[in-house]
Amino acid sequence: MSHRGKEFLSIIQKAESDLRTLLNIPEEYAVLFLQGGATTQFAAIPLNITTPNDAVDYIITGSWSDKAYKEATKYCKPNVIWSGKSEKYTKIPGFDSLKTNQNTHAKYLHICANETIHGVEFKDYPTPINEKTVLVADMSSNFCSKPVDVSKFGIIYAGAQKNVGPSGVTIVIIKKDLIGNAQESTPVMLDYKIHAENNSLYNTPPCYGIYMCGLVFEDLLEQGGLVEVEKKNKKKAEILYDAIDSSNGFYRCPVEKSVRSLMNVPFTLAKPELEGEFVNIAAGEKMVQLKGHRSVGGMRASIYNAMPFAGVEKLVAFMKDFQAKHA
Amino acid sequence: MSHRGKEFLSIIQKAESDLRTLLNIPEEYAVLFLQGGATTQFAAIPLNITTPNDAVDYIITGSWSDKAYKEATKYCKPNVIWSGKSEKYTKIPGFDSLKTNQNTHAKYLHICANETIHGVEFKDYPTPINEKTVLVADMSSNFCSKPVDVSKFGIIYAGAQKNVGPSGVTIVIIKKDLIGNAQESTPVMLDYKIHAENNSLYNTPPCYGIYMCGLVFEDLLEQGGLVEVEKKNKKKAEILYDAIDSSNGFYRCPVEKSVRSLMNVPFTLAKPELEGEFVNIAAGEKMVQLKGHRSVGGMRASIYNAMPFAGVEKLVAFMKDFQAKHA
Repeated sequence: MSHRGKEFLSIIQKAESDLRTLLNIPEEYAVLFLQGGATTQFAAIPLNITTPNDAVDYIITGSWSDKAYKEATKYCKPNVIWSGKSEKYTKIPGFDSLKTNQNTHAKYLHICANETIHGVEFKDYPTPINEKTVLVADMSSNFCSKPVDVSKFGIIYAGAQKNVGPSGVTIVIIKKDLIGNAQESTPVMLDYKIHAENNSLYNTPPCYGIYMCGLVFEDLLEQGGLVEVEKKNKKKAEILYDAIDSSNGFYRCPVEKSVRSLMNVPFTLAKPELEGEFVNIAAGEKMVQLKGHRSVGGMRASIYNAMPFAGVEKLVAFMKDFQAKHA
Repeated sequence: MSHRGKEFLSIIQKAESDLRTLLNIPEEYAVLFLQGGATTQFAAIPLNITTPNDAVDYIITGSWSDKAYKEATKYCKPNVIWSGKSEKYTKIPGFDSLKTNQNTHAKYLHICANETIHGVEFKDYPTPINEKTVLVADMSSNFCSKPVDVSKFGIIYAGAQKNVGPSGVTIVIIKKDLIGNAQESTPVMLDYKIHAENNSLYNTPPCYGIYMCGLVFEDLLEQGGLVEVEKKNKKKAEILYDAIDSSNGFYRCPVEKSVRSLMNVPFTLAKPELEGEFVNIAAGEKMVQLKGHRSVGGMRASIYNAMPFAGVEKLVAFMKDFQAKHA
């Protein structure tokens, strides 16, 4: 099957169309299916929409926004206007306080909508003080977990592998008037203009991954769209955070309650020496991947769209049982 | 499944190990599983192993080497030392004639080992006149179709999608001493050092595609390795080229006989007005994708590793039948 043949064209066009329906993407936005993960976009974004002397603003809420910021230093003049590092990335800044730090001439304001490792999630989005500054968001780990008002953003980008498909597909939703001014040194594969003009078919795309994303978009629409998906995600997260908060301190979630992620739930034990046992026994009961990221320790339950209620309920029952045995 | 978990580690390590066996890759070479297709490597190669004022040499044997050359103009000083354009890309240059054109100080000499669209293939490889100049080859469309002496090359790179796996995986085989000197503006995802230090796991790799490549490598080893695979490919190509050459000019292959590709067989009809009919009737008999690339016209039969003898025999029988009806 050629990626230019009518069979695959119908697959990628249907995937784009269903994603546009799911997220209610306005006509003035392009949808691109790319490769290389969000990490490639960390470079592509400044390369496409800045010149080397342009100021841009970054809010650092965890590891991913920090990586995005560091990559941007190669291509323009990024400023950190807020960092949660000193509070171990457990907070999202208040938007009023941001206003005084924002650069009037910033080309964009970059956020990571959900920090996969630290479990902090933007529940609303800051508005740049200059209406010419566009909001750019890495939504890799909460893409399609809830409705989003795309019109508030200049660029939304996401690796597919959390909620919508296998790894190896990156989705970029970009306002069309931002396309076409890439820096001269931009690799052709990082130039949004090339991909927009070629409907993501400039070279052979990750066809199988895009096909799988399309199947997931169909399924999300059949579930009733992202309003219904968000209801399920909220309920799953509530069950788990309630179990943590009602454990009399046996379990602890370090993240500020109002910005806890619906996708990634980090927690620790009051007795850290029990954490290894917790992870091992859980794995024995087929609850795997519960160890926290090597950079933060503790545990982390990732409860993406595909995690059923039963999975969360089983974990909560296990947590109560574990506590009863060790309290 | 996390890409850092032991399950996926065993998959990617086995895939690398089997590929090393298949191509007899020396220890002093790194094997990287990347994303973005050969087109991403068109930028990554000069970004990693040149400085902006370095001379590099390109041999242009078709569309793909021409694209690689054009991308390199952004990052260093590439020279075209031979081009087959005036002869419609039907030849490979004689290596003696190349010697006078090569730049003594070129950092690398770049070739496309098999031009997918034009059907010309290097049967042997040129030796740079300066031993410090490394040979770099895009092997996207003949990777793992035959044995290759890896030690002759500084870098071999290939999109997986022709012979070894689904689209979305790019394999780079690079001599380790070439790694670590990327230009400052290199996007982190194009920096070989990052990928080599992280065993291709710096960010989430295209896991499913790598898994599939691993299964194909196992299969190629079970077939007896690349010596046996090449025998099959030679026999398949021979059947098809013989049918063309013995058609009394009804079918024509424009490529010089000694450099005809074992993978991509372009041919035309003496009566071009019949080509549409040829392609349509063939498609009706389930022989699809026979139309030549839009840039060259005519027909093209791609007979990659996965094409069985029976497929080539069916096409040849159809060609004879079509000729009998129209001669």
